[in-house]
Amino acid sequence: MNIHVKRIKDLQYMLKQHGLDALAMGRTLEIGFLTGFHLDDCEMLVTRSGAWVFMPKMFVEQFRSQIDFAAAVPVDGAAGSPLLAKVKELKLRRAAFEPEAETYKRGTAWRKAGLQEKDGLTGALRSVKEGEEIELLRRSCHIAAKAFGLVKPRIKTGCTEMSVYRDLEDTMQAMGAKGPSFNLIVGFGPNSAMPHHVSSDRKLRNNETVLLDYGCVYGHYCSDITRTYFHGRPTEEFKKVYSIVAASQKAGLARVRAGVKTLDVDAACRNTIADAGYGQYFIHGTGHGIGLEIHEYPRLNTRCDAVLRAGMAVTVEPGIYLHGKFGVRIEDSVLVTKTGCEILTRTVKK
Amino acid sequence: MNIHVKRIKDLQYMLKQHGLDALAMGRTLEIGFLTGFHLDDCEMLVTRSGAWVFMPKMFVEQFRSQIDFAAAVPVDGAAGSPLLAKVKELKLRRAAFEPEAETYKRGTAWRKAGLQEKDGLTGALRSVKEGEEIELLRRSCHIAAKAFGLVKPRIKTGCTEMSVYRDLEDTMQAMGAKGPSFNLIVGFGPNSAMPHHVSSDRKLRNNETVLLDYGCVYGHYCSDITRTYFHGRPTEEFKKVYSIVAASQKAGLARVRAGVKTLDVDAACRNTIADAGYGQYFIHGTGHGIGLEIHEYPRLNTRCDAVLRAGMAVTVEPGIYLHGKFGVRIEDSVLVTKTGCEILTRTVKK
Repeated sequence: MNIHVKRIKDLQYMLKQHGLDALAMGRTLEIGFLTGFHLDDCEMLVTRSGAWVFMPKMFVEQFRSQIDFAAAVPVDGAAGSPLLAKVKELKLRRAAFEPEAETYKRGTAWRKAGLQEKDGLTGALRSVKEGEEIELLRRSCHIAAKAFGLVKPRIKTGCTEMSVYRDLEDTMQAMGAKGPSFNLIVGFGPNSAMPHHVSSDRKLRNNETVLLDYGCVYGHYCSDITRTYFHGRPTEEFKKVYSIVAASQKAGLARVRAGVKTLDVDAACRNTIADAGYGQYFIHGTGHGIGLEIHEYPRLNTRCDAVLRAGMAVTVEPGIYLHGKFGVRIEDSVLVTKTGCEILTRTVKK
Repeated sequence: MNIHVKRIKDLQYMLKQHGLDALAMGRTLEIGFLTGFHLDDCEMLVTRSGAWVFMPKMFVEQFRSQIDFAAAVPVDGAAGSPLLAKVKELKLRRAAFEPEAETYKRGTAWRKAGLQEKDGLTGALRSVKEGEEIELLRRSCHIAAKAFGLVKPRIKTGCTEMSVYRDLEDTMQAMGAKGPSFNLIVGFGPNSAMPHHVSSDRKLRNNETVLLDYGCVYGHYCSDITRTYFHGRPTEEFKKVYSIVAASQKAGLARVRAGVKTLDVDAACRNTIADAGYGQYFIHGTGHGIGLEIHEYPRLNTRCDAVLRAGMAVTVEPGIYLHGKFGVRIEDSVLVTKTGCEILTRTVKK
């Protein structure tokens, strides 16, 4: 079965489970996921038995030439909302939309027309990867992992953070990546202590920390990896902090398995760092889902109440940040399995 | 004056003009525009006399090291909304947010807390370019324009659309662009008749149309350009259609000037094509604003009631699409001036 047909069927099954008649969507991301048609300014309605995409006239021919499992409806600027007209025509009493995905403007119009709020349907659908998307994600992660080995020997005293940024980007693109999956973070020395440092013209000096947090987009799928090392002869403090973060990540990875709460993975990482006396310096969550977006459901932190499922792809990325001195973060992207996980960002094959 | 300080002051002036006490914002785009700090998961409150950015704890040190004209407030996940607490503390009775910019979830929470809806404040502010951003936009457009001259000689019979996509991207990056400003459109033959064709493995044959719609991001600013030409010996029909589109674009460009309605520019393009008997084949608007986003305020179409102002940057891009045969679109990005416009995507200097 075509993967998009299957996704629409899965969504239709979820509608039934939740006692809903339909889901209305207005974001390119969800419509692209369900149809493979990634274009802006469209809306989509999925009922228990049908699917419609409402789009500018200029997209219609292209859509119909590629897709036969959803109907293309041209939108005439002046004619009100064809999606709401369809909801009315089909007498869908329990149609819903996702509050986190829609703009306030669109959501308010839909709410006034009687649609209900229901979060998490497409997020849950997207969180479990299957079929071709696993291969795309694996390839995206392998490209990122391999780039570290290629770029690291070229990172020399006097290089700027931006030059390393460009080298990482070019190296990944030469391997087939479409581009970076976010604003890559290259931090030298004290800049490594800022978790979301913006790469600058700062030059690398002898004997300081290098932190690279990067990833690429391959076939729409985002990878995410962080590597930290010492350029020169590591100080005792760096060695100590690095070994604590490495132990923390190892403890987190050991907990990853289908059926485990994301809270527990976070706690495993967090407790290791706290037990070593650095709890106050781990100032962010342990990880997040990856896929079509660089940050998606589920989150691995102290608040998200999610359970890992086989096929979910998440990051595990504890860190310690000593302001004004240096920071260490170690991050891998992993695919959750029934018995543990496949670490996607390590190039060594299983 | 620092450009970000000026933008916040301009916004504060607008608040006063509209009788508002404050504007609340939750999107990276607006916060990045106002502060230069482009990071996710922040919220910002601008009052008539102050500015606060509410952010994850891990961003705080970095923010404070760069920015002194807005206060950084760390957000503790469990503590409710610090932005709403600030609104309450300052007794801001007429605080607003922008319905088109916020998610339904955030907007609804703000609405319930008594904030008003007010669209178009930051859009209007962003639409008029000034200072450094004009230079960045100019450079972004020049890179795109120059790439056409470099890439065209390499487009030969047997090339795939995707290979030309990559060549355009690489060529622009070699000139300093960060990346493409949207999913570039490379259409050969009948594919050129689909305004938003997705570049494919289709190979170029002798004697057919080549349409390239592309642009880059340079220093956060997006350029947009379309060039169409015939690979081989042009047919009479191609020559006729091309000359009509060229005349249409020329008529539109001649109308661009501060004080003119965007409706009038659209009409100038549309009437030229209609008068030549091809009205039904011009199936999209004439243009749109460009800047931090590839599509922003104002729109040049049959509906948007906007007036051009000096400093606005817009595209003028009429087209004719003959389904199954070929399409022609000619697009330039221009900067509106008091007396006309500067065409940014033509490399010849004035």
